[in-house]
Amino acid sequence: MSLIVMKFGGSSVGTTERMQRVAQRIVEKKTAGDRVVVVVSAMGDTTDDLIDQSKLLNDNPPAREMDMLLTTGEQISVALLSMTIHKLGHSAISMTGWQAGIRTDAVHGKARITDIRPDRIHRALDEGQIVIVAGFQGMTEDGEITTLGRGGSDTTAVALAAAIQADVCEIYTDVDGVYSTDPRVVKCARKLNEISYDEMLELAHLGAAVLHPRAVEYAKHYNVKLVVRSSFTQNEGTSVKEEAVMEQGVVVRGIAFEKNVSRISIMGVEDVPGVLAGVFGALAEAGIDVDIIVQSGVKDGKADFSFTLGLGDRDKALSVIEGIRSKVPYREVTSEEGLVKVSIVGAGMVSNPGVAASMFKTISSLGVSIKMVSTSEIKVSCVIDAEHLNDVVRALHTAYGLDTSEQAFVGGPQERR
Amino acid sequence: MSLIVMKFGGSSVGTTERMQRVAQRIVEKKTAGDRVVVVVSAMGDTTDDLIDQSKLLNDNPPAREMDMLLTTGEQISVALLSMTIHKLGHSAISMTGWQAGIRTDAVHGKARITDIRPDRIHRALDEGQIVIVAGFQGMTEDGEITTLGRGGSDTTAVALAAAIQADVCEIYTDVDGVYSTDPRVVKCARKLNEISYDEMLELAHLGAAVLHPRAVEYAKHYNVKLVVRSSFTQNEGTSVKEEAVMEQGVVVRGIAFEKNVSRISIMGVEDVPGVLAGVFGALAEAGIDVDIIVQSGVKDGKADFSFTLGLGDRDKALSVIEGIRSKVPYREVTSEEGLVKVSIVGAGMVSNPGVAASMFKTISSLGVSIKMVSTSEIKVSCVIDAEHLNDVVRALHTAYGLDTSEQAFVGGPQERR
Repeated sequence: MSLIVMKFGGSSVGTTERMQRVAQRIVEKKTAGDRVVVVVSAMGDTTDDLIDQSKLLNDNPPAREMDMLLTTGEQISVALLSMTIHKLGHSAISMTGWQAGIRTDAVHGKARITDIRPDRIHRALDEGQIVIVAGFQGMTEDGEITTLGRGGSDTTAVALAAAIQADVCEIYTDVDGVYSTDPRVVKCARKLNEISYDEMLELAHLGAAVLHPRAVEYAKHYNVKLVVRSSFTQNEGTSVKEEAVMEQGVVVRGIAFEKNVSRISIMGVEDVPGVLAGVFGALAEAGIDVDIIVQSGVKDGKADFSFTLGLGDRDKALSVIEGIRSKVPYREVTSEEGLVKVSIVGAGMVSNPGVAASMFKTISSLGVSIKMVSTSEIKVSCVIDAEHLNDVVRALHTAYGLDTSEQAFVGGPQERR
Repeated sequence: MSLIVMKFGGSSVGTTERMQRVAQRIVEKKTAGDRVVVVVSAMGDTTDDLIDQSKLLNDNPPAREMDMLLTTGEQISVALLSMTIHKLGHSAISMTGWQAGIRTDAVHGKARITDIRPDRIHRALDEGQIVIVAGFQGMTEDGEITTLGRGGSDTTAVALAAAIQADVCEIYTDVDGVYSTDPRVVKCARKLNEISYDEMLELAHLGAAVLHPRAVEYAKHYNVKLVVRSSFTQNEGTSVKEEAVMEQGVVVRGIAFEKNVSRISIMGVEDVPGVLAGVFGALAEAGIDVDIIVQSGVKDGKADFSFTLGLGDRDKALSVIEGIRSKVPYREVTSEEGLVKVSIVGAGMVSNPGVAASMFKTISSLGVSIKMVSTSEIKVSCVIDAEHLNDVVRALHTAYGLDTSEQAFVGGPQERR
């Protein structure tokens, strides 16, 4: 008998039929003898519909009131899912975030969980109930309703799993696991049986974005065993845990990529202390996320440096840089768009020198030039022209021995439309 | 500076425009210097839509889960109304039932308010906020979410007004007050400026059912001054209070009626103690609401008695009576449908003998026969054939001097469609 947390996203419960299938799936676990806590998101487009409704009345509503509004989406889900389970003849009890004891700080719209008091969940489990908890929400010490922000339901599931010491936290999603790369780009992408938390964090933005990085961080911190699997198949899914077994001879676990990258270079900056802090401090204040930063060597007391950022932030960043010219003098600024970032990820890279070199070689052999490079212990990233993305990803996937002959299962009914 | 509770029903906030109009109306009070607590129902058809959605998944869902589901309707309303007020540049805070301190018993679906702890409301008022409370809902001592059942938002408003000792509780509705009779039947029906709680209770089922009897009872018990007025006009409305001023010479305040009445008569019942209790006990157990009960005199140790009930309950009642024949022997049972009940209501009747007699005379002069009669201190009811309803109501309205030449305002935009 295990204690299991099962998390279902909004599209998994988006229709009557899907809700019934999810209920059936939960009941199977319960019937098998497990104790089950379920976390659910708002159904389908509910959240977007509520946002649209609010915009008609106030285009800039207070975050507190948005939380009041949006948390109803999950409350509807849990009530309906509980009823559906009752219909199958099993006992279930739905709980809002506050009823489940999820306490957060008071940052409306992106609150962080500060504490979980799962007494009520334990009581209900002891009574033999299936417990259905509204994801994405909590309550402050002052009794204010909050939402956890993006990826919130994943975080709810992982945090609950940690708090009740669940044996496993299963994240049900549209895909049947974590893939070595986006199966839409590489047909022979392989589903990974295991992956470490750190690798998962690096791959988090890969393709379908199956797990939110914050939830992965939480799982790593509390050592919660995660399994990512499909709501629509019985396939085994991908286990995410501290130490993932590496297959023989495989050092790279997966190929990640990010589109719509742009580059800004600031040339001829005077090399005095505080220059980098001045530039990137100003960008951070403006809410601009900078990714790779590269500084070449200093020449004649002047330095050039480059960084990447999302395409949408480019113009804003350029005007910030223009604005600080008096404080941080430079010769000129250049920028470029139409770039992508390709990364190879694998915990085995630490002990395998030459992995980066083979990446550069693979890319060069396609006649593609590498614009920027960045490395970490488990990742090497290269910035290249967007037009070469698919070719490069496929070549790297093959070069690192990741190709499989099995057909990837991508997405449930919704994605097939 | 007054402390005011304003209650708006679902159709008053059913569209973006109406929500904005309601917000404007609230802000006017606030700007005039009043402290304002608002109670809102779920928007338009929200509650029915949620019920429909639940039916697809479980035709007989647990009442607890229904409460979990339906309370989201009011939560959405309060959040959106608060945002709309913010948009007008005023400070507002929405509260769920539990946040507003509304405690109830645990009878899901028709809970009763047991206690109100308005600390949070007072704090928000002291901060200068407009407080928006979700109607129709509360929380048990165990932290379970409940709904108050039919008329729940009216009751929330009145109970809150009592708890915070508001100067007045204004109930905004589709009509601009309480009328002497249904203006759809009598064109010259008059809007009443004042009416007593008891009269309001008797008239509660009149026409548009502007106020739920439970809310009126609550108001009477806590002596809360109620005002019923229109969301769509600035008209003054009707005050409901303990002692309502009677206009000169007016003893009857209004004419109420109820359609779809049926009669059952049980003839030749042996006149032994416990017979009435046996019959009506069995009917009550079957959940059948009996209205007027008339027993004629006893003859040869046998009695005849008749009672009225809603048309929908007739067949069920007949089979209950058939079922108790062995315990309560009788000669025969007759029944009749197609009846209506017409009532004259007025606190002044107590001290004005002859009011009932003039009612009988008015009805008889139309050639209509009276099938049953029932009287209370402030009401006389006659059961007649349905076909004569409109003629009788009009004749009584004229006979008791209630006709006015002003045009009644019936319903807002929704009702005019």
